[in-house]
Amino acid sequence: MSPRSDGDRRPYRGHLSVGLDVGGTKILGVLLDAEARVLGSVRLPTVTGAAGVIDTAARAVEQLVHAAGVRVSALAAVGVGIPGVVDPRTGRIEHAVNVGIHESVALGPHLAERLGGVLVHVDNDLNAAALGAAHLLDSGTGAGTGTNPRPADLAFLSLGTGLAAGLVLDGAVRRGANGTAGEIGHIPLVADGLPCACGQRGCLERYASGSALDAAWPSRTGRPAPAELFEAAAAGDPDAVRIRDEFASAVASAVRLLVLTCDVARVVIGGGVSAVGTPLLEAVRAALVDQTTGSDFLRSMDLAHRIELAPVGVPVAAIGAALLGAAAPARR
Amino acid sequence: MSPRSDGDRRPYRGHLSVGLDVGGTKILGVLLDAEARVLGSVRLPTVTGAAGVIDTAARAVEQLVHAAGVRVSALAAVGVGIPGVVDPRTGRIEHAVNVGIHESVALGPHLAERLGGVLVHVDNDLNAAALGAAHLLDSGTGAGTGTNPRPADLAFLSLGTGLAAGLVLDGAVRRGANGTAGEIGHIPLVADGLPCACGQRGCLERYASGSALDAAWPSRTGRPAPAELFEAAAAGDPDAVRIRDEFASAVASAVRLLVLTCDVARVVIGGGVSAVGTPLLEAVRAALVDQTTGSDFLRSMDLAHRIELAPVGVPVAAIGAALLGAAAPARR
Repeated sequence: MSPRSDGDRRPYRGHLSVGLDVGGTKILGVLLDAEARVLGSVRLPTVTGAAGVIDTAARAVEQLVHAAGVRVSALAAVGVGIPGVVDPRTGRIEHAVNVGIHESVALGPHLAERLGGVLVHVDNDLNAAALGAAHLLDSGTGAGTGTNPRPADLAFLSLGTGLAAGLVLDGAVRRGANGTAGEIGHIPLVADGLPCACGQRGCLERYASGSALDAAWPSRTGRPAPAELFEAAAAGDPDAVRIRDEFASAVASAVRLLVLTCDVARVVIGGGVSAVGTPLLEAVRAALVDQTTGSDFLRSMDLAHRIELAPVGVPVAAIGAALLGAAAPARR
Repeated sequence: MSPRSDGDRRPYRGHLSVGLDVGGTKILGVLLDAEARVLGSVRLPTVTGAAGVIDTAARAVEQLVHAAGVRVSALAAVGVGIPGVVDPRTGRIEHAVNVGIHESVALGPHLAERLGGVLVHVDNDLNAAALGAAHLLDSGTGAGTGTNPRPADLAFLSLGTGLAAGLVLDGAVRRGANGTAGEIGHIPLVADGLPCACGQRGCLERYASGSALDAAWPSRTGRPAPAELFEAAAAGDPDAVRIRDEFASAVASAVRLLVLTCDVARVVIGGGVSAVGTPLLEAVRAALVDQTTGSDFLRSMDLAHRIELAPVGVPVAAIGAALLGAAAPARR
C-alpha cells in the first residue's frame, strides 16, 4: 500500500479490513475484501473486562488474517463495534457494562498497539449495525446506485437486552453531539409505568425489549423466550396472544417515534428478538396498522411498509464495523 | 453574474439573496448580502390561497430589491419557507392549510416565472428556521469556525399553532425520506389523551403548543394567552401555575424526545409562545431538571443546558430560507 498523508480518508476499495462485533457473550469477526465482500468470519467467546476484550479482539483479528494467508499489517483497518458510550475520534469507551468494562478504557489505542500499529476505529455497536444493514440491504435493492441514487437512510432498531437504535441518515452514521443518538429505549412510553434501571419510569425499553419479553413470558423449555411466546400465541394461548400484542404495540410505538422524528426511509428490526422472524414482523405490522386507524396523517406515513427484519444469519454489525474502520481517517 | 453549468451549486458568497417566511397572517422577507448580513426586510399581510401567496411573495421580493436599488435579476436566489409538505427538488407544496393552500401547487416554478426566471427554492418553514437559527447562533459563538470547527447541530422546536421541529444535524438540514422529519407533535404523550386533529389521541401537540395554552388559559385582555398565563403564574395564581407547569413538562418531554432520538447539541425554542421569553425558558428548564430527578442516565444528557430561546425580533426563518435558496442547485 502506498503511504498516505495525514487526514487522508481510506475508502475500503483496494484494501482488506476486519470488523468485530463485540458482545457480552461472543465476538463476531469478519474479513472484508476491497468490494466489501466477506472473505472469512470467526466467532470467539468474549472474555469480559478490558484486558479480556482486548485480547479476544486481537485473537479474532489474528485468526481472520491467518486463515486468509495474510498478515495483520496487510489490513487497511480494523473496525470495532461495541455496546457503550464510544468516542470514535479517540477510540475510548465507557459504560460498556455488557462486556464487563465499567471504567473509561482507550480500547482503540490498546488494540492497535497489540496488533502492531494497524488503524483501529471503535464505534457504538448499533452505529455499526445500522451501517452494515444499509450496506447489505442496498446491495440487494440497487439503492445508492443507478441513475437516481438515494443515499442509505434507515434506523436499525435493536430488540435485545435493551432497546436502542442506530441511525444512518442521508447516507451517514448519525452519532449525535454526545455519541448517544438512538437511545430511544429511555423515552417514557407509559406514564408512571414500570421502573427502569435508568432511574425513570415507564421507559419504552421496559415494554419493547428482549428483557421485557423474558420477564413477561419466562422460557419454559430453555429455548429463547421470544420464540416460545410467539409459538404459544400462534397456537392460540390467550395470555401469549396478549403479551405478544402488547409487545408488538410497544415496538410499533418505537417505529412511529423514529419515523415522526427522523423520517427514516426504513426501520430494520434486529437484535435477539428478531430471530423470531416473520411472525414478529407481522405482529409489529398489525400493531402499526392498528395505531394508524382513524389517522389519515399517520396512514400517509406508511409505517407498516417501512419496517423489515435484519438479514438472518449475517454478522451485520461486524460488517458495518469493518466498513466504518475502512472509511475512518488514517490519523486523528 | 457569470453563467453556471447544470448542477453547479451557488454559495451565497458574492451574491444577494432574498428569503421569505410565509405564514398564515404575514410574509416576512429579508434581503441578504454576500456575507449573509441582512440588508433589508419587509412584512406584508398574507393573502391566502395559491394565487394570493404567489402574488404576496412576489411583491415582497420586489419591494426588497427596489429598496436596495437593484433588480430582481441581480438575485442569486429566492428562498421560501412555508408550512406544509414541500418537495424542495420541484418547489411543489401540499397541505399548506395555514396559508389556505389545500391542493398541490407548484409554488417554486410559479413564483420563479412571476419574478422573471430567478432561481426559487421552496422548503418547509421549520427547516428554514432551523438553518437560520444555526446561522445566527453560530455567528455569536464562533462554532463552525476556528481550529476545532463543529458543524451546526440543533433542533428548532416551534411552539406555535402546532408543535413541530426543524432539524440541522451535523451541519445539514435533515428533511427525511418523505420531507416530514421533525413532526414530533403527533407522537402520543398521554395514553388515551385528548383527541388530536390528526386522528390520534394524546398527541404531544395537544399539550405543548400555543393552541394548547390558548385552550387552557383563554386570553382575558386580548394580549397573547401565553404572556397572560405566565404573568398570572408569576403572580401566584394557582390555576395558572398548574397550567404553566403542565405545559412546561410537555415541552420538556419534547426536548427529551429530540435529544434521546437525535442527540442534537441544542434545542432552540421558537414559535409564538417563545415570545414569553425567559420565564418560558426557566419553566422548561425546571421541568427538565424535575424529569431527570433520580436518573443519572438522563442527568448525564444535560438537557437543561441544551435549550435556549430563538433570537428575539429576528426573522430567523426568512434568513434561513435565504440561505437555503442561495445554497440550492441552480437547476433541478
